[in-house]
Amino acid sequence: MSARRRHLGAFRWEATPLAAYKAEGTHFRDVTRQVLFAADAGVGCELRYFEIAPGGHTTLERHQHAHAVVVARGSGRALVGEEIVELARLDLVSVPPRTWHQLRAGQAEPLGFLCLVACERDRPERPDADDLARLRAKHAIAEFIRV
Amino acid sequence: MSARRRHLGAFRWEATPLAAYKAEGTHFRDVTRQVLFAADAGVGCELRYFEIAPGGHTTLERHQHAHAVVVARGSGRALVGEEIVELARLDLVSVPPRTWHQLRAGQAEPLGFLCLVACERDRPERPDADDLARLRAKHAIAEFIRV
Repeated sequence: MSARRRHLGAFRWEATPLAAYKAEGTHFRDVTRQVLFAADAGVGCELRYFEIAPGGHTTLERHQHAHAVVVARGSGRALVGEEIVELARLDLVSVPPRTWHQLRAGQAEPLGFLCLVACERDRPERPDADDLARLRAKHAIAEFIRV
Repeated sequence: MSARRRHLGAFRWEATPLAAYKAEGTHFRDVTRQVLFAADAGVGCELRYFEIAPGGHTTLERHQHAHAVVVARGSGRALVGEEIVELARLDLVSVPPRTWHQLRAGQAEPLGFLCLVACERDRPERPDADDLARLRAKHAIAEFIRV
């Protein structure tokens, strides 16, 4: 097998299946996932490429494991903790442990991003009614989140 | 501090110093380094951006730790083990443990790439005379490598 896997164009790669973001649910919309480097790459983390279609969003969630994100394509916005940031190509985002986060593509173009995570990680937690009330206490966050 | 560090254009980022590839040496040429996510990002690995100027190259070396590479800009070639591969934007490269490797930019444009490594890693080893003789036994490798 070659050391190189070619980019085939349009953010698809050789020998890299296009997967659903998550198995099921209504708490995310129009997101695909490709694992670019899995645990067997031996670098201590995994690198995935996610793409959110225009108007779509990831799940609003938090967990103990951190994320490190590099925007690869398009634009959008992210909630990280209590901050909502605009995202453009090659911007970097850090999501610390136990921090609520959600990414949304704009209406005009997809938002594609590389996401680094540790190989061993805990299961994400979604907000309960109390969490949502706390998040929605800030108007900008109330407007932003999709659940 | 914001969760986001903006891309400033031309593969430079907010709050991200441009560093030399290595402290000194004649075994590499025209390479810069930026650490996009260090160990404190908490994902179990580090993500660096390297850029090789046209005509430049990284060090020919090997080590126990693995590399996972995503080409971000331009084009070039890489030696990985006994394979020489062409590199284009968004191609993926895996460098397994103890594998000789070297990246070269072409003459026309820089080669920029994201490189993932474990936070804890061993010191690279450069080829001795016997290693070089073995590498140069293959004509294509003899032509490719710069030491």
